[in-house]
Amino acid sequence: MAGTVTQVIAGGAGRWRITGIVAVRGESLGAAEGLTVVEGVVPAPERAKIWRLRGVASNLRYATKAEQQVLAAASPPLARPEADCGALIPIRKTAAWWALAQDERRAILADRSRHVEIGSRYVPAIARRLLHCRDLGEPFDFLTWFEFNREHKSAFADLLGELRASEEWRFIDREVEVRLERG
Amino acid sequence: MAGTVTQVIAGGAGRWRITGIVAVRGESLGAAEGLTVVEGVVPAPERAKIWRLRGVASNLRYATKAEQQVLAAASPPLARPEADCGALIPIRKTAAWWALAQDERRAILADRSRHVEIGSRYVPAIARRLLHCRDLGEPFDFLTWFEFNREHKSAFADLLGELRASEEWRFIDREVEVRLERG
Repeated sequence: MAGTVTQVIAGGAGRWRITGIVAVRGESLGAAEGLTVVEGVVPAPERAKIWRLRGVASNLRYATKAEQQVLAAASPPLARPEADCGALIPIRKTAAWWALAQDERRAILADRSRHVEIGSRYVPAIARRLLHCRDLGEPFDFLTWFEFNREHKSAFADLLGELRASEEWRFIDREVEVRLERG
Repeated sequence: MAGTVTQVIAGGAGRWRITGIVAVRGESLGAAEGLTVVEGVVPAPERAKIWRLRGVASNLRYATKAEQQVLAAASPPLARPEADCGALIPIRKTAAWWALAQDERRAILADRSRHVEIGSRYVPAIARRLLHCRDLGEPFDFLTWFEFNREHKSAFADLLGELRASEEWRFIDREVEVRLERG
């Protein structure tokens, strides 16, 4: 697990079709038609690459043992055949966030923003994955990834709305929403 | 700060003279005469390189606001002219450690092993620096770095003894001690 890089590669084609790219905060990402997720450092054909983001799964940074167990029990797997819609949402947090101590970040994320609790209300409909990239020198701090069936699109909109209304999101200064459908 | 890589390069010569390398747990590192710390990804001359480790400063992972303030007030700067001795101690923690939840790791590190409290008793004599490298796919999880005057060598031995006797150290499966003196 440690140090296993996952690459998200956007280009003229890919396993997922890009149906929209919106800059929610800050600068956008370049227009592209398709997106592919590659595990490991396998090089992508230069020709097909419009942008590429990298992240690692890493360890949990905030979840307690009790939360970890709830998450593990409730988390649906990725790549379910019925999950024909997806979203990649890279986010970057402010310098002020990263200067906070662990207990301050935990208080905002868990106690006041209820990030984990919000997410847990949308399983099993919406499967999620989190990749870390701040320490890799990438333009974002996290790559967040979602998969769901098209009948749960409005639930996904609710999930994003709840998260974006939280105190935690005041510390986000770049966020790009890349909407996907199975190619 | 984010993603700014620091390289530690061991070779035939360097700004620090390597006076000893000991594998405390697990595999050692190759014998070398000198060591240089380079900020950023400036390439090192291949000729001079015997081994190279990389890490990033990253954000605090466990310290509370109160602990962060104590640390900031008490931490001596690096590169003090009188600090003629140093040590690089790369460490790797077990898979069992990384599978623990945040509150379990914090309980072992802070409440039961008193890692921060131990370190704070040795300032200002011993200056410390911590670099993270697990997510970079490096052979170690952390590069720990120490600087002190030779008159504090025995205090440094006490510091290492206290840390290695702690519960936290049961989760360390590779540790190499590289002792240094100003070239």
